Amino acid sequence: MASDPSLRPTDVRMKGFARRWTVEQCFHWIDSTTQVLEAELAGLQAAAGRVLAADVISQIDVPHFSRAMMDGFAVIGNDTAGASTYNPLRLNVLGQSLPGDPYPGTVTPGTTIRIMTGAPMPQGADAVLPVEQTVIEDGSILVQGEVAPEKHVGVPGEDIQSKTRVLARQRRLRAQDLGVLSSIGVSQIPIVKKPRVRLVITGNELLPPGSTPQNHQITDANSPMLSALIERDGGEVLHPGIIPDDPDRLLSALETDADVVIVSGGSSVGQEDHAPRLLAEHGTLEIHGVAMRPSSPSGMGTLGNRLVFLLPGNPVSCLCAYDFFAGRAIRTMAGLSPDWPHQQVELPLARKLVSTVGRTDYARVSIEGDEVEPISISGASVLSSTTRADGFVIIPEDLEGYARDSMVAVYLYE
Amino acid sequence: MASDPSLRPTDVRMKGFARRWTVEQCFHWIDSTTQVLEAELAGLQAAAGRVLAADVISQIDVPHFSRAMMDGFAVIGNDTAGASTYNPLRLNVLGQSLPGDPYPGTVTPGTTIRIMTGAPMPQGADAVLPVEQTVIEDGSILVQGEVAPEKHVGVPGEDIQSKTRVLARQRRLRAQDLGVLSSIGVSQIPIVKKPRVRLVITGNELLPPGSTPQNHQITDANSPMLSALIERDGGEVLHPGIIPDDPDRLLSALETDADVVIVSGGSSVGQEDHAPRLLAEHGTLEIHGVAMRPSSPSGMGTLGNRLVFLLPGNPVSCLCAYDFFAGRAIRTMAGLSPDWPHQQVELPLARKLVSTVGRTDYARVSIEGDEVEPISISGASVLSSTTRADGFVIIPEDLEGYARDSMVAVYLYE
Repeated sequence: MASDPSLRPTDVRMKGFARRWTVEQCFHWIDSTTQVLEAELAGLQAAAGRVLAADVISQIDVPHFSRAMMDGFAVIGNDTAGASTYNPLRLNVLGQSLPGDPYPGTVTPGTTIRIMTGAPMPQGADAVLPVEQTVIEDGSILVQGEVAPEKHVGVPGEDIQSKTRVLARQRRLRAQDLGVLSSIGVSQIPIVKKPRVRLVITGNELLPPGSTPQNHQITDANSPMLSALIERDGGEVLHPGIIPDDPDRLLSALETDADVVIVSGGSSVGQEDHAPRLLAEHGTLEIHGVAMRPSSPSGMGTLGNRLVFLLPGNPVSCLCAYDFFAGRAIRTMAGLSPDWPHQQVELPLARKLVSTVGRTDYARVSIEGDEVEPISISGASVLSSTTRADGFVIIPEDLEGYARDSMVAVYLYE
Repeated sequence: MASDPSLRPTDVRMKGFARRWTVEQCFHWIDSTTQVLEAELAGLQAAAGRVLAADVISQIDVPHFSRAMMDGFAVIGNDTAGASTYNPLRLNVLGQSLPGDPYPGTVTPGTTIRIMTGAPMPQGADAVLPVEQTVIEDGSILVQGEVAPEKHVGVPGEDIQSKTRVLARQRRLRAQDLGVLSSIGVSQIPIVKKPRVRLVITGNELLPPGSTPQNHQITDANSPMLSALIERDGGEVLHPGIIPDDPDRLLSALETDADVVIVSGGSSVGQEDHAPRLLAEHGTLEIHGVAMRPSSPSGMGTLGNRLVFLLPGNPVSCLCAYDFFAGRAIRTMAGLSPDWPHQQVELPLARKLVSTVGRTDYARVSIEGDEVEPISISGASVLSSTTRADGFVIIPEDLEGYARDSMVAVYLYE
């Protein structure tokens, strides 16, 4: 065995990290290195949930004409002065105005036209008399109530005024925003590009997703999981398949035109952990080894103008490290908040949750009744713990944990 | 004008609804009429966020072999008994086991092999001695600590046991669920079909989405908005474009193989409101006119085996009626919770919010500091009010409103 270079007494790298960075230091590096991507133009149908890259200023008034806000009769308001059930006043009906089919003439004193909600107001009229205040006769109506000028009339610009800002950059577009954009005649809008994320899944032991595990090979769980997480965070997944534990193959997989590279597996300090060394040699390995549990063998750096995240191959560690680090960068690039995208609830702990000062913990929990129940630590390294869990609690590095009955924030999965 | 039949004195339909249904009655009808759609098979990449249509039972153990849980040496635990820094014991190193590349021989007393996290345990060994407790020499190691049998060894089925239920039907699939499914060799899973939703946008005054409004035409805001809402709720949008206010054209648009038809516009009781009459004549008009604000001219019924929702053309009313009614049906069919999908926060009202007993109100609000500020009622009918708002408060029909400082649930937009 003396010929096996991996067993040299000097192979101290197997003995773990010389130092560990804090999660805060990782956040600081990510935030100082990552910026929102440039804009691209998209149609309305593609823009839901995307982030506006520029303010949108309306070039028109909405509506751009006066319109009825009720079904009824377009009148000169002063014509109705004094009208009541006991003193009905007669107006001659000249015609009608429908949405998209306006009345071409003019309403003069003593006349009216029938008008539908949304229809253009005719020349001459300044108010809409609701149909409930009329008796309809043959070619005329009896007015049974007063209506003041401007009543039930929508004026130009009532919804949106020309030259005003309708939506501000950095806004994540809602369904109704798309409606507003449509209504001002905008069909193409500048949105922040999707970060392109290359997945590099390493491991000689891995079979493609969904394969039946056999012999001493296991099935890649990380690429379907990471793909869904990247899409949740606004990224576009580029997946070259599983890369063997071979430095040359790995290096060529890292050489991509993506914005972010995520390497899953081989992220620690063992002899088969090529990615950290390759990153240090061909780019920068800014951080390697993080004071957290799980996911301590995580790393990050740059290669060319790409951010590279080294995530542990264990699926739980991979999930955790993605959500702490890679997801933060991808969300920032996509123009979203860098913070956790999970919904949060505040609930009391059913039992204490132990950690260690100097280390950040990611503890999976379930919610039982109105209490937070930690998932037993024995199954902590298995992915099924994250399907049994309802979410997770983060124990920051300056705490030894949380006492029973402490109120904690649970980040809900999904 | 006597020849205009729409002005006959008997045209009482213009005068509003004979009765109004409550929102609760609408919910009851929707819930009793709507059921989860059948299943379809999907690949892992398409299944994120979709709903499982059947329980998933694993056919295998995960892992399916014993594996190391740490980097170190695979040993017979009893071989380390009594070892310490002061009493190091020597073991001969026979070889190594890497993930996907197991050691083919057997570990016998006095021997060991080097092993990496995740690698198969060799025959004979029953524990992993962490590398930190060793001194590595040339072809052998000095053991400086004890390790009990089974320590740091992952046993078959530790993550998932064969024949157990991994995920239950009706679950909305999370990113990590896809990882678990992949790891048990599942590549195709039964998920609830997407409800197919035909959008029927009516109105002679409407121009296609994103067009510049001109003359007396306005631009359709509802189809981009509704499309995004339908997709949010798990539906698939089928959009035939804008349909003119013509009964024949409208009827043929309703004759579709979709699961749900949403008609936007022409939902009230005016002469141009063809949809309710067509539905009553050719299918069932179960509900028409709802005691709510906005959106009271909403309706619902069936045509063939399709649910049909009649939504007002005003974009705010359309949004509100979609979220109350059509969205509820679509979410149910997609296997999701029928309830509002919005995140909620509880906050005090900055001023009173007035409603009327017997009517459900949908009040747009903004959140100013830690208080809920109602959006002024004057702009209530314009869509931009829903882009200025952060969300909405529902005032149920049995309340006259909420007093200032009341805690209210705000449903957050987006």
